[in-house]
Amino acid sequence: MITIDKVISAKRKLQGVARLTPLNPASKIGDNIYLKCENLQLTGAFKIRGAYNKLSSLSEEEKAKGVVACSAGNHSQGIAYSAGLLGIHATICMPAGAPISKIEATRNYGAEVVLVPGVYDDAAAEADRLANEQGYIFAHPFNDVHVIAGQGTIGLEILDQLPDVEQVIVPIGGGGLISGIAFAIKQLHPSCRVIGVEAEGAASMFKSKKEGKLASLSSVSTIADGIAVKKPGDLTFELCSKYVDEIVTVNDDEIASAILALMEREKTVAEGAGATSVAAYMFNKVDTSLKTVCVISGGNIDVTMISRIITKGLSKSGRITNITTKVVDKPGSLMALLDIVAKTGANIISINHSREDEQSDISSCIVSMVLETINPQHVKEIKNKLSKNGYKIID
Amino acid sequence: MITIDKVISAKRKLQGVARLTPLNPASKIGDNIYLKCENLQLTGAFKIRGAYNKLSSLSEEEKAKGVVACSAGNHSQGIAYSAGLLGIHATICMPAGAPISKIEATRNYGAEVVLVPGVYDDAAAEADRLANEQGYIFAHPFNDVHVIAGQGTIGLEILDQLPDVEQVIVPIGGGGLISGIAFAIKQLHPSCRVIGVEAEGAASMFKSKKEGKLASLSSVSTIADGIAVKKPGDLTFELCSKYVDEIVTVNDDEIASAILALMEREKTVAEGAGATSVAAYMFNKVDTSLKTVCVISGGNIDVTMISRIITKGLSKSGRITNITTKVVDKPGSLMALLDIVAKTGANIISINHSREDEQSDISSCIVSMVLETINPQHVKEIKNKLSKNGYKIID
Repeated sequence: MITIDKVISAKRKLQGVARLTPLNPASKIGDNIYLKCENLQLTGAFKIRGAYNKLSSLSEEEKAKGVVACSAGNHSQGIAYSAGLLGIHATICMPAGAPISKIEATRNYGAEVVLVPGVYDDAAAEADRLANEQGYIFAHPFNDVHVIAGQGTIGLEILDQLPDVEQVIVPIGGGGLISGIAFAIKQLHPSCRVIGVEAEGAASMFKSKKEGKLASLSSVSTIADGIAVKKPGDLTFELCSKYVDEIVTVNDDEIASAILALMEREKTVAEGAGATSVAAYMFNKVDTSLKTVCVISGGNIDVTMISRIITKGLSKSGRITNITTKVVDKPGSLMALLDIVAKTGANIISINHSREDEQSDISSCIVSMVLETINPQHVKEIKNKLSKNGYKIID
Repeated sequence: MITIDKVISAKRKLQGVARLTPLNPASKIGDNIYLKCENLQLTGAFKIRGAYNKLSSLSEEEKAKGVVACSAGNHSQGIAYSAGLLGIHATICMPAGAPISKIEATRNYGAEVVLVPGVYDDAAAEADRLANEQGYIFAHPFNDVHVIAGQGTIGLEILDQLPDVEQVIVPIGGGGLISGIAFAIKQLHPSCRVIGVEAEGAASMFKSKKEGKLASLSSVSTIADGIAVKKPGDLTFELCSKYVDEIVTVNDDEIASAILALMEREKTVAEGAGATSVAAYMFNKVDTSLKTVCVISGGNIDVTMISRIITKGLSKSGRITNITTKVVDKPGSLMALLDIVAKTGANIISINHSREDEQSDISSCIVSMVLETINPQHVKEIKNKLSKNGYKIID
């Protein structure tokens, strides 16, 4: 059973171990919004709180046995780091295709990494097997009272940092994070709303809450890999049912927009899961008139993913545009086109001018331009201007 | 004349206007390093401190005249924002080719933006002309005692946040930021070292200090556009000569690595200028045994630049590799190649398998792979393994 004493005791244990992360205003996203920056936590995510609290609750005998965990991401780093601090041997099963950066990070914290061919479920089965065979203690990522109490310390910090908070938005994967936070907040400041956010493609808690019983999904698909969970825990489901006011969902485009907005406007790097709370706020899934804290649960996003999100986000918001058209193949005609474009205020990022395209006839050339633009309205204006001047836009 | 009273008075004026920015430990970059996060300042850079302090020091008569400034970047936003707060009319001259995002941001803060054809110098000339013609007060970006006093408030905050700091590293453009910080710190905690950092391609203060007199560069070239300044001010040069212990330089590759490290390890977005302080630390241009604060002066980096820096940084550190080789054009031969690659632990990001390359003869195909790798050593191992198995690496 979770109690407020367990959360307070976790807070004491975590002193000097986990960071008291900053609560920063996000005034360029909204007037009333604050970010609880668990992306600035050690290991880049909140997971160390629950992991350390769990491992330090083990008996000496259990500690001596060692622990095993399974995760392609933040939980593995939280366990590896905490086990290192406590002198416990940790074995982490990861799917063989996990990002090399995460495998290396887990190894660097001192854990033994077992790469398991296949997907997450295969790695989980191997962790189970090792627990049975080697007698390792299995460290569950969310369905555990010590883990939940550890994550609950975030709730205590939020209440210290912003005593008059009216709403807290929390990403949901397995539900450990929100269970801890919602429990702590409802004990101490019951009028504060606690809203959960799931990715549309992995909304297992949303489904469970709707159906009134633990439900599972046959498959999950979202860019928020940190919360791509097929089935919540029974414990976390029970706590969410009791203490969470509402669960909303956001789609991948909304998550990508939130990641981009956090980087550009608030200069902070969030992973997909971590940005869902801000996505819910930005896309009006919640009451934005309340004084709101969005929990940014983690920042461990693959940098190559960032590049893709930037490109996608800019294109989606009309800030980068590809326009392809035809010009007559004679001197000066490209200049004439560029002159029109320049006068619209667009910046030309790149131009491809080709005679050999299959769409071009013998006397004309295809010109493809990548333009920096202001917004979708601006893009429309440019296209209209080109059409008026006799240029046909090729899709 | 700058005095500590002027800095303290600036601090009072800035209360409720500028943010007291966090000082965050950067434990994944070094043991003893802290980031003074002016990238989290309003308008995304420290400039608002000096700008507001300057504008609020104007007489009512001067305020009524309006101000004019010239900048393609952070200074324009600082002036625009501050002028808006104080009800002063602001005209900002910007080069016509400035990033649209910066033009829009400046407009959104309520300033009148004049786009001037040409480069920075042309915009500066136009600002000068407008000051003369319209009677506007010219707001200099750095060579001004009120501006310097405003930036000096960062020094006061650092001493409050980390009283036993031993070294502060500060980016130098025109020298306003470091003049204020160095002055404040040397008054109150003289044993603390203050180190300036310039981009190698724009090291005008470094040159001035070396020659013992104000020197100017005929051209500047660096990805740190915020500090690409051809000539420091006479006032900032004098203060740097008196209060700055040493000036070091970093090159564009080092700056790019620092931007990437800040994003990946510390989850924070810095612009080129802002990352120079961390670059100096990472590449041992300073004594890294001291308890060090790196001032991250700003975070207004164009997101398309971020994409380029990620790609460059990953490739430079051996974490992404392109390998091209030949395989015999018969069933199974591509699989055989991929099997060898997979066994080295590299992840295959993309493959291009082509029969039509001019380098391939009639019975073979060219295969180009983009691989996720661990480090340069790992890349070498993969290439050796392929060579040993009879694959010729094509450069």
